Amino acid sequence: MRVDVAFTPAGIPQGELAGRSVVVVDVLRATTTICAALHHGARAVIPATDRADAARLAQALDRRDVLLAGEREALRIEGFDLGNSPREMTPEVVTGKTVVMTTTNGTRALLGTAGAREVIVGAGVNLGAASAWAADALAAHGDLLVLCAGREHGFGLDDAYVAGRLVLAAMGARRTRKGLNDGAIAAVDLVRRYGDRLDRVLALSAAGRHLAAIGYRDDVLAAGQVDAHPVLPLYRERRVTLVHGGRA
Amino acid sequence: MRVDVAFTPAGIPQGELAGRSVVVVDVLRATTTICAALHHGARAVIPATDRADAARLAQALDRRDVLLAGEREALRIEGFDLGNSPREMTPEVVTGKTVVMTTTNGTRALLGTAGAREVIVGAGVNLGAASAWAADALAAHGDLLVLCAGREHGFGLDDAYVAGRLVLAAMGARRTRKGLNDGAIAAVDLVRRYGDRLDRVLALSAAGRHLAAIGYRDDVLAAGQVDAHPVLPLYRERRVTLVHGGRA
Repeated sequence: MRVDVAFTPAGIPQGELAGRSVVVVDVLRATTTICAALHHGARAVIPATDRADAARLAQALDRRDVLLAGEREALRIEGFDLGNSPREMTPEVVTGKTVVMTTTNGTRALLGTAGAREVIVGAGVNLGAASAWAADALAAHGDLLVLCAGREHGFGLDDAYVAGRLVLAAMGARRTRKGLNDGAIAAVDLVRRYGDRLDRVLALSAAGRHLAAIGYRDDVLAAGQVDAHPVLPLYRERRVTLVHGGRA
Repeated sequence: MRVDVAFTPAGIPQGELAGRSVVVVDVLRATTTICAALHHGARAVIPATDRADAARLAQALDRRDVLLAGEREALRIEGFDLGNSPREMTPEVVTGKTVVMTTTNGTRALLGTAGAREVIVGAGVNLGAASAWAADALAAHGDLLVLCAGREHGFGLDDAYVAGRLVLAAMGARRTRKGLNDGAIAAVDLVRRYGDRLDRVLALSAAGRHLAAIGYRDDVLAAGQVDAHPVLPLYRERRVTLVHGGRA
């Protein structure tokens, strides 16, 4: 059994993803927003590295079916249809649309998973679905990697805590630390410290405090609603779609 | 008040070190080894980026006064006088010598601190001295950064725990989380989980398990001996010396 948590994409050595089962986590806010979009009817979310890449991808599609979404320093990119707020992804806005999305940390983490066996998107809002997938992956392949987007190349408490929740759920009744890397051990320790209080962790985290300070407190609250968007988004061939239904 | 813990040098944005009070931590093993060397009479420890850099630095000094020390993948570099083991740094070997040292993570972390106000070397073996310095720095400048070497660009449980000990010691009676970054919050949580059991954390960490597996279990035990080398090594102008006595 091998269970790893990487607190930033930089923590994964090149080539380390080959054949692995990966959950990408960026609770505040990219993976939360992706879950909201797909839950509310978006056809797909396509991660883009930057604004130019997003524009290029949008051009390749039918522009009427596309929404450009993204942030830099937590604010909507000028000229884009949407920012990176889960609350923007309402059924009225996203149904039937393909969301091309670029964010500082989360979409980059997704794009860095080339070579993995399977990649899903995890957050608090789909914790149950992501946990079930993680448990299945660990049972079937003896392997799980939770890849946190982190915060500008650094550690993010919000992602680390959700990673710990996923690891504990995947391990089920197993109580061993064997096969866990240092990140997984520390992530599990965070869950033992904060219990099931995702909302408390989000409020405490630097990302949560920053979002609240610039007027996005409701996004922090939305991201803390466990299983509010109980979907299982799969990342494959550069697009995120739902495993059941949709195009996956 | 600002108290940050970075779990890897990559977690520090460029320019972020300007004016800061920094403790560099690489418990297994570089900063432990540095403390042992200086405690046992070494004149100075000079970090080098790689083997060639070490050879160049040694040439610039009187070769008779120099010991070349270093590891790659935990093993002594071929042709070097010493590896990266604190137990090699005996008084017989190091007294009066300048140790030029290159390691995978620790010396690189030291070399990455350019621009900081003051940089000291922290480990379990000098936890009391490093804690006192950290408390003084926080009191005098309202600022502390613990920079963990980490493990091949990833999170290391050993360094994170010692970082938590340093943060708690520096904060003293203050119980607030205000001013702590996410890394500092998580590091303190680790101390709440493991108490004063540095030895247990080291045995649990990936670095500790790896060292034990390749025959360095005694190094792990040595690194776990709190205050065994109660020195305060200062890094300045590319050399580490003792604050009191020696060349500092």
